[in-house]
Amino acid sequence: METAKADRRILVVNGPNLNMLGKREPDVYGSTTLADINLTLKNLGKEAGIGVDFFQSNHEGEIVTRIQQSLGHCKGIIINPAAYTHTSVAIRDAIAMCDFPVVEIHLSNVYKREAFRHKSMLRDIVHGQITGFGAVGYEMAFMALSRLIP
Amino acid sequence: METAKADRRILVVNGPNLNMLGKREPDVYGSTTLADINLTLKNLGKEAGIGVDFFQSNHEGEIVTRIQQSLGHCKGIIINPAAYTHTSVAIRDAIAMCDFPVVEIHLSNVYKREAFRHKSMLRDIVHGQITGFGAVGYEMAFMALSRLIP
Amino acid sequence: METAKADRRILVVNGPNLNMLGKREPDVYGSTTLADINLTLKNLGKEAGIGVDFFQSNHEGEIVTRIQQSLGHCKGIIINPAAYTHTSVAIRDAIAMCDFPVVEIHLSNVYKREAFRHKSMLRDIVHGQITGFGAVGYEMAFMALSRLIP
Amino acid sequence: METAKADRRILVVNGPNLNMLGKREPDVYGSTTLADINLTLKNLGKEAGIGVDFFQSNHEGEIVTRIQQSLGHCKGIIINPAAYTHTSVAIRDAIAMCDFPVVEIHLSNVYKREAFRHKSMLRDIVHGQITGFGAVGYEMAFMALSRLIP
Amino acid sequence: METAKADRRILVVNGPNLNMLGKREPDVYGSTTLADINLTLKNLGKEAGIGVDFFQSNHEGEIVTRIQQSLGHCKGIIINPAAYTHTSVAIRDAIAMCDFPVVEIHLSNVYKREAFRHKSMLRDIVHGQITGFGAVGYEMAFMALSRLIP
Amino acid sequence: METAKADRRILVVNGPNLNMLGKREPDVYGSTTLADINLTLKNLGKEAGIGVDFFQSNHEGEIVTRIQQSLGHCKGIIINPAAYTHTSVAIRDAIAMCDFPVVEIHLSNVYKREAFRHKSMLRDIVHGQITGFGAVGYEMAFMALSRLIP
Amino acid sequence: METAKADRRILVVNGPNLNMLGKREPDVYGSTTLADINLTLKNLGKEAGIGVDFFQSNHEGEIVTRIQQSLGHCKGIIINPAAYTHTSVAIRDAIAMCDFPVVEIHLSNVYKREAFRHKSMLRDIVHGQITGFGAVGYEMAFMALSRLIP
Amino acid sequence: METAKADRRILVVNGPNLNMLGKREPDVYGSTTLADINLTLKNLGKEAGIGVDFFQSNHEGEIVTRIQQSLGHCKGIIINPAAYTHTSVAIRDAIAMCDFPVVEIHLSNVYKREAFRHKSMLRDIVHGQITGFGAVGYEMAFMALSRLIP
Amino acid sequence: METAKADRRILVVNGPNLNMLGKREPDVYGSTTLADINLTLKNLGKEAGIGVDFFQSNHEGEIVTRIQQSLGHCKGIIINPAAYTHTSVAIRDAIAMCDFPVVEIHLSNVYKREAFRHKSMLRDIVHGQITGFGAVGYEMAFMALSRLIP
Amino acid sequence: METAKADRRILVVNGPNLNMLGKREPDVYGSTTLADINLTLKNLGKEAGIGVDFFQSNHEGEIVTRIQQSLGHCKGIIINPAAYTHTSVAIRDAIAMCDFPVVEIHLSNVYKREAFRHKSMLRDIVHGQITGFGAVGYEMAFMALSRLIP
Amino acid sequence: METAKADRRILVVNGPNLNMLGKREPDVYGSTTLADINLTLKNLGKEAGIGVDFFQSNHEGEIVTRIQQSLGHCKGIIINPAAYTHTSVAIRDAIAMCDFPVVEIHLSNVYKREAFRHKSMLRDIVHGQITGFGAVGYEMAFMALSRLIP
Amino acid sequence: METAKADRRILVVNGPNLNMLGKREPDVYGSTTLADINLTLKNLGKEAGIGVDFFQSNHEGEIVTRIQQSLGHCKGIIINPAAYTHTSVAIRDAIAMCDFPVVEIHLSNVYKREAFRHKSMLRDIVHGQITGFGAVGYEMAFMALSRLIP
Repeated sequence: METAKADRRILVVNGPNLNMLGKREPDVYGSTTLADINLTLKNLGKEAGIGVDFFQSNHEGEIVTRIQQSLGHCKGIIINPAAYTHTSVAIRDAIAMCDFPVVEIHLSNVYKREAFRHKSMLRDIVHGQITGFGAVGYEMAFMALSRLIP
Repeated sequence: METAKADRRILVVNGPNLNMLGKREPDVYGSTTLADINLTLKNLGKEAGIGVDFFQSNHEGEIVTRIQQSLGHCKGIIINPAAYTHTSVAIRDAIAMCDFPVVEIHLSNVYKREAFRHKSMLRDIVHGQITGFGAVGYEMAFMALSRLIP
Repeated sequence: METAKADRRILVVNGPNLNMLGKREPDVYGSTTLADINLTLKNLGKEAGIGVDFFQSNHEGEIVTRIQQSLGHCKGIIINPAAYTHTSVAIRDAIAMCDFPVVEIHLSNVYKREAFRHKSMLRDIVHGQITGFGAVGYEMAFMALSRLIP
Repeated sequence: METAKADRRILVVNGPNLNMLGKREPDVYGSTTLADINLTLKNLGKEAGIGVDFFQSNHEGEIVTRIQQSLGHCKGIIINPAAYTHTSVAIRDAIAMCDFPVVEIHLSNVYKREAFRHKSMLRDIVHGQITGFGAVGYEMAFMALSRLIP
Repeated sequence: METAKADRRILVVNGPNLNMLGKREPDVYGSTTLADINLTLKNLGKEAGIGVDFFQSNHEGEIVTRIQQSLGHCKGIIINPAAYTHTSVAIRDAIAMCDFPVVEIHLSNVYKREAFRHKSMLRDIVHGQITGFGAVGYEMAFMALSRLIP
Repeated sequence: METAKADRRILVVNGPNLNMLGKREPDVYGSTTLADINLTLKNLGKEAGIGVDFFQSNHEGEIVTRIQQSLGHCKGIIINPAAYTHTSVAIRDAIAMCDFPVVEIHLSNVYKREAFRHKSMLRDIVHGQITGFGAVGYEMAFMALSRLIP
Repeated sequence: METAKADRRILVVNGPNLNMLGKREPDVYGSTTLADINLTLKNLGKEAGIGVDFFQSNHEGEIVTRIQQSLGHCKGIIINPAAYTHTSVAIRDAIAMCDFPVVEIHLSNVYKREAFRHKSMLRDIVHGQITGFGAVGYEMAFMALSRLIP
Repeated sequence: METAKADRRILVVNGPNLNMLGKREPDVYGSTTLADINLTLKNLGKEAGIGVDFFQSNHEGEIVTRIQQSLGHCKGIIINPAAYTHTSVAIRDAIAMCDFPVVEIHLSNVYKREAFRHKSMLRDIVHGQITGFGAVGYEMAFMALSRLIP
Repeated sequence: METAKADRRILVVNGPNLNMLGKREPDVYGSTTLADINLTLKNLGKEAGIGVDFFQSNHEGEIVTRIQQSLGHCKGIIINPAAYTHTSVAIRDAIAMCDFPVVEIHLSNVYKREAFRHKSMLRDIVHGQITGFGAVGYEMAFMALSRLIP
Repeated sequence: METAKADRRILVVNGPNLNMLGKREPDVYGSTTLADINLTLKNLGKEAGIGVDFFQSNHEGEIVTRIQQSLGHCKGIIINPAAYTHTSVAIRDAIAMCDFPVVEIHLSNVYKREAFRHKSMLRDIVHGQITGFGAVGYEMAFMALSRLIP
Repeated sequence: METAKADRRILVVNGPNLNMLGKREPDVYGSTTLADINLTLKNLGKEAGIGVDFFQSNHEGEIVTRIQQSLGHCKGIIINPAAYTHTSVAIRDAIAMCDFPVVEIHLSNVYKREAFRHKSMLRDIVHGQITGFGAVGYEMAFMALSRLIP
Repeated sequence: METAKADRRILVVNGPNLNMLGKREPDVYGSTTLADINLTLKNLGKEAGIGVDFFQSNHEGEIVTRIQQSLGHCKGIIINPAAYTHTSVAIRDAIAMCDFPVVEIHLSNVYKREAFRHKSMLRDIVHGQITGFGAVGYEMAFMALSRLIP
């Protein structure tokens, strides 16, 4: 884990099944892989002088633990909780402990999909939410965070 | 109305009470005025070679009419429907006729506010939605649209 | 406004976005324009000795005002409230003041569409409702009204 | 059953208690009997060169069977399912097998009556719906069908 | 059908599965058979000078038809609609045509059973309802009707 | 309180506003007074060799206490909880302690009235329920109890 | 618009169809016209040294604009939003910007009418609400405001 | 109880915990005591030639009884049912027996408080309702009643 | 009816419109006919020494009666109640009388279809449920029953 | 009432039917009587130097009054509101006036019982809640209060 | 993990607590252990020439990962998600990526148990569902899959 | 894992984010750490001759496994499931296998927080529940368990 100091460092958290991004169901999520997105963000970070850490997990508990570890070690979080968006009180509780801005992002427009995807357990405790712009959404989130962190 | 040709021209629509932006309730909406936001977008448009038209109205019917007029005359819409977000089927029907991407934006994080603000009548027919980033959200919307329009 | 006397005169009111009829989304609403429909009704009126006035507006308030003006000046109303069907208490209140039969009409079968279109704010105060027959529905409404008015 | 060939032949189906039409509760349903309505439709059919078959039953199962029998033997159905409107999945399933237009009709304005009458099990699979015009509604349905069948 | 004249004659209608009464599930419905109940009512009728007709059917449509036939031929109905209590709009519509008192009866206390049995489609249009007294309930219904019919 | 021994003795409990019976709103509740009803029950009791105690109160707490006092001193209860039918858990809890049959009665057909009257807090713990027969309902309840008590 | 200075000046806003007051449906709203009410308030204002401005519109957008214009130019608002009471987030947002007391008034007792009239979009942001007293309600609102404004 | 004759005499009923008014939670209910309010009303009554009786109780049953006693002895009631507003069918039933106007009043704006306070069991059977004006509301209620009683 | 003795004999019940199986809507239900399925089951029965009776009806009442007749004459039931799955309390009550295992089967995956098909009135009283396997489901049901019957 | 001074004195309030504790339904509530519990608490109080007052009533109003009287005379309340837990806004309002900790206790695990017992009108305004531990729960409540009061 | 090639190989996934099968609560789940079931399936696989892999986990994330790993390595999945049936969007999303048939199975009849067990997060995306047949259900699932895989 | 023998040994399970106790959001959860609480319980255990094991995890699956392992090795469980309280059927199923008392505890009063925290997936299967007493709640739970275990 490369989170030595918190100075202008952010964490990007991706939830379950996002490790498959670009490999399955391209009609819903596009063909860009998570590695592609991470590279783009890494480069944006370099330009802006912001360190970027990455974390993906299929485990709710691991995501909770990783967010806890970021406390005091980063200045912002971009999180795409994927399936846990709609069900995880545990991730919500971890996010609630963050004293820095957190941006929630969804690749697809969740409102065009099943009704249970219309609700987010995080939406009222994050700084803002970006929905439906595909991989570009991560760049938009980075742009927002770069304005928000000191 | 300056919508001569549709080539890389977009329309920015703002709904009721947004003419008061920056003048009242700065704790909820910030102190930036709508003129400030428009100027920023105008400048971003110049850099990107994208014409930007602006429209604000307190009337649901006028917003419907303005969107109808944009058909064939622009390549994308950024819309902050404000109060009409939650109630207007008429604006939804007008947006549904658009054959170009529409981006929905909200200044405040609507999920921290009254329950009736959690629902949007547009969210499932727009390309994507940006919520909670204040005036910066318009720049994010511009960034998204500039990628989407040909 | 050609509503000199009420003798066997009716008003046809069309709501928001119906001015675009036949120009957009023909798969949902068909390719007939509102002008086509009005001409057909005008001719039916001539045959039946019934004067027919027409009104279309994107503004809820203008529709309310036009219905108020028809009081005492017509013998029946055919109304396609379009988007306002599902939301307008104001139009309902105006219709409730009418002491002549009002027929509600919808071009598409609203029950094949979004759930919010299944409810009408007018349906329990109008004489009857016609749904799903496209432009032919206006002729059916005319046939019904011509039987109902003295 | 007089359904020899399907050429421009339609079926009129009436549900439970409609055999009592005109005999009880005239304030709700009017004084016209089902025989009166059938005669009118018969005559309209003669003028239009359309054969008209009639069927009334208090039994859900008989109505299902009669609709099945009409497959391949008629070009359209006018159905007033009466009480079964609100409860019958079986009739819905039979109607769903029809490859010709079906028109749903209700004598009274169901929206002025009990809440359970506001929902129809057929409304999203029929071509269109006519509500509240009394016996005239059958003529309107005939007019609609005569336009729809080849 | 023994319904020659309506003078002090009543009809007792029993719905689906009540023909099995006393033969199955005695813990829920007791061991008295429908024939036992009918005999008791017959005798009560003799004492009171009231003719009593009986009808049981598993078919919703037959019950509807039998109630229609009773119009003008009886002075009151005791009905235990059994399963159709909770679902039948058709029986409700038939009962609504009766211009004499109708008493609804249930053998078991329906409120101790599944939630769907707590609602009756008839309860607001009958004269009164008796629930939970087993076979004695029919005698109570008879006592009530004998007071109500002229 | 005349409840010396429990042998074939029952208690009749009437809830709030029933002391006004026959004095106000005769169109809803009839013109019979509570004294009239009590007299009828007293006489029925004499014929059947059953002692009958009476209690009416506008106080939920007093009704609870009176039911508690009846434990071990009576063989059955007829209760018309009136307004407390729909709200009182306390009376329900008191009734639940009774080891003898309790009959719930309502004068009017509660299902013809406001929706909040359709629910009873007692209905699933009493032996049976009688609704809509006016003062005659008390006699029906007595008939039922006289069969049930040893 | 006569809103020169804000010193002890109030605004009275009336929503859609209230221009018809006293002309239609007198059984629901009485026969007093809006002009009558305004005159009464004008006179009460004179006695109390309070200037009174009036505004009526059928347009949601015009009401929003008029409330915006009153900011800084009056000390209180009496508003009867009529149909917009139940649907308008836009008027709510305008009222929320007011830094002076706002009184909501309804002529009829909305709770005796359709269920959708039982909810007000303003009720939790106004100072208080007056319902059911007819034209007298405006005088009560004036009495309340005259106590509240400095 | 000073209710000798009904000529221009009214009753003011206050529900549970209002005896503590002005002593606890002044931020919600203000510092005026119930005695203060009663004195003001007494004086208003003297000026208007209207006798005013007062009653406060924490007991639902006592309030029911007091309202019953007022029948025939007063010309109007002002009632602040406090907590019983939201739960008491018994008080509703007592109010329903009144053949004179009843005014419902709440000190605080109940719509700014818990959701269960948004519903009133009385609101559809009283003449009108006043909410949110503190102690001034009683004076408004008096003003309304003084206009309504003969 | 070939139900002489109950020894290892089962009944297969098919509900409304299943007589049309393989003739209409093959995309939903496949092209296998009910006769095909019955033949397969007949053969499976022969191999296993289990007699198989078949019954199909569009009538709810006939299905109820047939189930009643099977009591004491068979060892198990396979039932595809089709449309009556979602509405029939009467069939539920008949099934509840069976003292042998009953297997519920649906051809299509009902959860991919309309919401009203997601609920079964039988599912909590049958032994088990098989959904979505087409005609193969009947064979699975037979396999299950053959294990369950003695 | 022995509430001379508030120094380390607490009040124990028990609601309706708890006077019957240990006398009826021991399977639900155990065989310990309220007197047994009070004695245990009295002794615990002695050890801890805390005075303990007791109050039980079947009357909602009396409980309200007793809580009001405790203001300024005690340092904490243990309340088992029994049936009034689920319905009493009046007791909630009285508790809301307490400026000392209040502990809510239930003998049985209410979540194993009827759904209406799952909601408490007090739970969000008390300090904490103890459910399901029988008579031991009072000792746990005492332990909690003894830590909380100064 | 023995998933060398996908040719006629299937995966059997069992969710949380199923490792305890046959060890606890035999009245609900029977006494067969998971090892017993696996052995039966292994043998069935051998007969049919189908390889069978097994996986059980109490971790939602591990189940997600295992399903991802099966993509391209098997021809079908039998899944008993146990507790995660009702809550896991993550497993649903993993299943949605499968391009081969998935069969959902439940040991007990979930509809006889708590209401939250009546809903499955997978049911509308799997091929079919088997409920209530105990360990036999796995054999039925195998039978179904063996027909479906090429 | 120190669970050698079950004799008077209990397990204390803490769910996600409770490892952060006392480190973040002290206004909601206090400043006591989990280590502090464990030490207190250890000491209480020593006094009472009860062994105490501790387990904390952010993983739902690990908590399930740990509870399974405790079967046969302890006499009681104190569980604070934290976020999993509201969502975990898996933990519920594990708890349901315990044949010893389980006590559910929450630090904060969950009823003062978000609505989704008001529901517990465990509450109807545990012995009892303690809510809102902060760290003291663990001591209360220990007191309860020490009474319950043999």
